[in-house]
Amino acid sequence: MTRPIWIKNIHQLATLASNKEGPRSREAMSKLGIIENGSLWIEDGIIQAVGSTIVLEQQYAARREEAEIVDATGHLVTPGLIDPHTHIAFGGSREQEFEMRLEGVPYMDIMNAGGGIHATTRMTRECTEEEIISQTTRRLDSFIHHGVTTVEGKSGYGMNLESELKQLRVMKKLQEIHVIDLVPTFMGAHAVPPEYKGREEEYIDHLINDMLPVVAEEKLAEFNDVFCEKDVFTPEQSERILEAGKRYGLIPKIHADEIVAYGGAELAAKVGAISAEHLLKASDEGIKEMAKAGTIACLLPATALYLREEAANGRKMIDEGVAVAISTDCNPGSSPTTSMPLVMNLACISMRMTPAEALTAATYNAACAINRQDRIGSLEVGKQADVVLWDVKSYQELQYLFGVNHTKAVWKKGVKVVG
Amino acid sequence: MTRPIWIKNIHQLATLASNKEGPRSREAMSKLGIIENGSLWIEDGIIQAVGSTIVLEQQYAARREEAEIVDATGHLVTPGLIDPHTHIAFGGSREQEFEMRLEGVPYMDIMNAGGGIHATTRMTRECTEEEIISQTTRRLDSFIHHGVTTVEGKSGYGMNLESELKQLRVMKKLQEIHVIDLVPTFMGAHAVPPEYKGREEEYIDHLINDMLPVVAEEKLAEFNDVFCEKDVFTPEQSERILEAGKRYGLIPKIHADEIVAYGGAELAAKVGAISAEHLLKASDEGIKEMAKAGTIACLLPATALYLREEAANGRKMIDEGVAVAISTDCNPGSSPTTSMPLVMNLACISMRMTPAEALTAATYNAACAINRQDRIGSLEVGKQADVVLWDVKSYQELQYLFGVNHTKAVWKKGVKVVG
Ligand SMILES: [Zn+2]
Ligand SMILES: [Zn+2]
Repeated sequence: MTRPIWIKNIHQLATLASNKEGPRSREAMSKLGIIENGSLWIEDGIIQAVGSTIVLEQQYAARREEAEIVDATGHLVTPGLIDPHTHIAFGGSREQEFEMRLEGVPYMDIMNAGGGIHATTRMTRECTEEEIISQTTRRLDSFIHHGVTTVEGKSGYGMNLESELKQLRVMKKLQEIHVIDLVPTFMGAHAVPPEYKGREEEYIDHLINDMLPVVAEEKLAEFNDVFCEKDVFTPEQSERILEAGKRYGLIPKIHADEIVAYGGAELAAKVGAISAEHLLKASDEGIKEMAKAGTIACLLPATALYLREEAANGRKMIDEGVAVAISTDCNPGSSPTTSMPLVMNLACISMRMTPAEALTAATYNAACAINRQDRIGSLEVGKQADVVLWDVKSYQELQYLFGVNHTKAVWKKGVKVVG
Repeated sequence: MTRPIWIKNIHQLATLASNKEGPRSREAMSKLGIIENGSLWIEDGIIQAVGSTIVLEQQYAARREEAEIVDATGHLVTPGLIDPHTHIAFGGSREQEFEMRLEGVPYMDIMNAGGGIHATTRMTRECTEEEIISQTTRRLDSFIHHGVTTVEGKSGYGMNLESELKQLRVMKKLQEIHVIDLVPTFMGAHAVPPEYKGREEEYIDHLINDMLPVVAEEKLAEFNDVFCEKDVFTPEQSERILEAGKRYGLIPKIHADEIVAYGGAELAAKVGAISAEHLLKASDEGIKEMAKAGTIACLLPATALYLREEAANGRKMIDEGVAVAISTDCNPGSSPTTSMPLVMNLACISMRMTPAEALTAATYNAACAINRQDRIGSLEVGKQADVVLWDVKSYQELQYLFGVNHTKAVWKKGVKVVG
């Protein structure tokens, strides 16, 4: 038996509670369920009560001596942040390539010297499971120190049966040994591996006939993701891969319209994807169809910053009725970061989302994007006690004082893991 | 007597040492004086020896038992970062305004409701010295946790004799009580205060005749800065203010060409300013004149990000022979951040500077921009022991793994203050 935890006197408690289920769009993204001078009572890893400190003082009058008390005077408390889109379980590092590019070495020279995504594929294939676990643990440790309690992770650097399974098994093991909840996505269709160059259809057959059955059999993934982009997978190929995954119970996700408008948003709506990712170049029509279908837009403004691209139009998508989630896109090529707080800041700065919308996008809507809104994403009675205490007084200050990690303490399933 | 400190086995020790004095430009910005498996011996707050661990092991063989040993295996060590441009000593906070703007309230409505810079002037005037000290201490604490050991700070929110002096006296007191070295700049010419609207010349007379003498008499500042910009101070007005400061021994600095090309860079070269700031719109001619005059460009990419402006062309300035420093511009309106690590990342991402150039810009060249290169900015025998141990293995990784504060430990004048 562990002692109950009573977090009290919370200057601003953003519960994200709502009586509407499912992804939030438009005005619903601004409703944070704020309680001033709030309190949380946590027991057995679960939130037992949420309310004003005065109410909880009465409710738990008989048990207050039992509890470990956390005085949150002057502080903001929110649900644990959720990162619904990462490529976290890879091998190796590419900081030398980063430096070479800034020193003016042409990108094609770097690629021809074995750089770019193929460098990560090579290193991921070469690493043992233990090596990838060790490298990924470091990234997960950084995530939890940035207030993130659940992280989605994709395979897709293996791009052959053995190495794709290695990435997914690494995530399964990490799920057992790390405090962070790691939610696995199969993304064999991240690119066409070099050995299949010019034989894309053969790779897709291999993926569908040889990879998907094993992934399903071993229950290694919940989602199936594809990079639908010019010169990668066409909408038709993407649809075939996603429909095949559905037959194995894998929920579709789709990297869509990152570089050119390519019908990715439309396809996401058509196949019933839970989310579409990137969407920098999504068409107006595609955005409308996503709104109608209830497809979540998972936007990645840190990637846009790192690549010097104009970020996705988060403002417009929300106004058009699309539920928006945000994510780091943590990966070694286009977004080597673990800071969801920075991603929230960028949602405001680069995508003109309001501070409230940015918080919803990083908590409740992010939970929806990984199908976990029944357990996480808001602070409500019966939900998992994934809680962050911030070193600021309000969600407004959290977004305004940008570029700084304001995480002060983190509880994961009711256990203090940071602070 | 305190024990000597021996930081040893440093995977990568970036000393920033060079046998050339003065601001660095072109290739000199890429020379970090790297020592692999390096060591630092610190005593009496001063660096006593720098070299490879093997050499220091022999040099201090007789005294190794005496020293407190820090094992830096696998880590990067650099000089303490220096922020050469902030407006840190202000009163109040403007996160509500940030939210209102993102909620679509027109900027002019916010200004008319008393927002913008005038809000900070009002709050700074209303706050007591103690209140400003307390609020600024929080920001300085954040700076030191981001590896920053010296911060320049400007007045300029008071904009009357009493309140300008209050800001400068606050900085003088903080210099005594906080571990960070705070370097004061007088910036009465930050804007024309509302009560002088339409009587700019009268305000300038007041500044020159009433403020400057007291600032000089009480030795409250080392530099004199002016916001030379369309609709603020003309180049002619700016020159008058800076020349007046020079007569009192204040070294000129100048906020130049932020919004339009206005001759600010040219003026900086002409008056012999130690640095020119912002420079987003600096003309080619102005850049050339700065290079010739040896004026340091102090670039503020976090401000550009926050304002959604294209960052200054750091790449071009370095290639043209200008010595570049970088800074947070920490202020409540256009850059509410304390993260110099993020600013280094943005120097690479947004200004195409290399990882090595970004580190030089945040250390040695930043020291030059505040006339402190004799004491700080590099790790050399006889210099102040302002040292940062980073949770990465190399300066390349420091810039590549962006958006994260990798500071692991900080020594200020040989005393461990973080970690
Ligand atoms: Zn991705
Ligand atoms: Zn400034």
